[in-house]
Amino acid sequence: MELQMPDEKYKPIGHHYIVEASGCDPKIISKVEKVQQILVKAAEIAGAQVWSVSFSKFPPMGVSGVIVISESHISAHTWPEFGYGAMDFYSCGDNVDPEKGLNYAVEAFGASTFHITEITRGLDDGDKAYFHSFVTWEEDIGGEEKE
Amino acid sequence: MELQMPDEKYKPIGHHYIVEASGCDPKIISKVEKVQQILVKAAEIAGAQVWSVSFSKFPPMGVSGVIVISESHISAHTWPEFGYGAMDFYSCGDNVDPEKGLNYAVEAFGASTFHITEITRGLDDGDKAYFHSFVTWEEDIGGEEKE
Repeated sequence: MELQMPDEKYKPIGHHYIVEASGCDPKIISKVEKVQQILVKAAEIAGAQVWSVSFSKFPPMGVSGVIVISESHISAHTWPEFGYGAMDFYSCGDNVDPEKGLNYAVEAFGASTFHITEITRGLDDGDKAYFHSFVTWEEDIGGEEKE
Repeated sequence: MELQMPDEKYKPIGHHYIVEASGCDPKIISKVEKVQQILVKAAEIAGAQVWSVSFSKFPPMGVSGVIVISESHISAHTWPEFGYGAMDFYSCGDNVDPEKGLNYAVEAFGASTFHITEITRGLDDGDKAYFHSFVTWEEDIGGEEKE
């Protein structure tokens, strides 16, 4: 797979989305192939370049997997017995739209709501002492924000 | 690799540590093999069981990689030109001590300070509407907490 080098200057700033998806369809989130397909498609929809894919069964009934993208990583860990899926989408640079990918993934999981925190990583005040900041909200599938 | 099934009941609660490590040694965090070794050892020190390992160069000078552990995942993305490493350690269950692994990793990176948020994931109020909570602090290497 060819590595596309973006033209812009590389910056350490990244956007890391932490998602708790509820009311997911156990028939979907219990299948390794299905969860992997959804996450790979989410990466594509977000405009991320996939480097490596690793998914497997997650006891007792779930799926666990990570995709390394050129812009950082995406992960999912599922608990079908609770209708719950934990997802991450961490990306750097301006070429990727993680929210677009995540919106696809939570819908494909059959989720009814999700709780999400966006963490902006790699911030500094010019002193190379890096920190992150965050903002949290909730959404019903369909897109209405609760808070 | 054999999968050890813990005896306890599986719960969706997990602890996800988000770390920004500053003042890291560029000679260390620019080498794929070195970063991979450190993260695999961090997984072992934490008591996590490694399922898959995927590390590669991260343009322009850094390293990007993820370890899928039976308890969730660990990742590192580095920017040697800024002495900066972004690390994650997400684990479920009570058999793993992520902080022990992370303390080893930030020291091995040669970091001087780190900014860290611990996110408790998969919380619910009995209604299966999952959310997370978090707490943030900073540490100098040597262990003194700043706030």
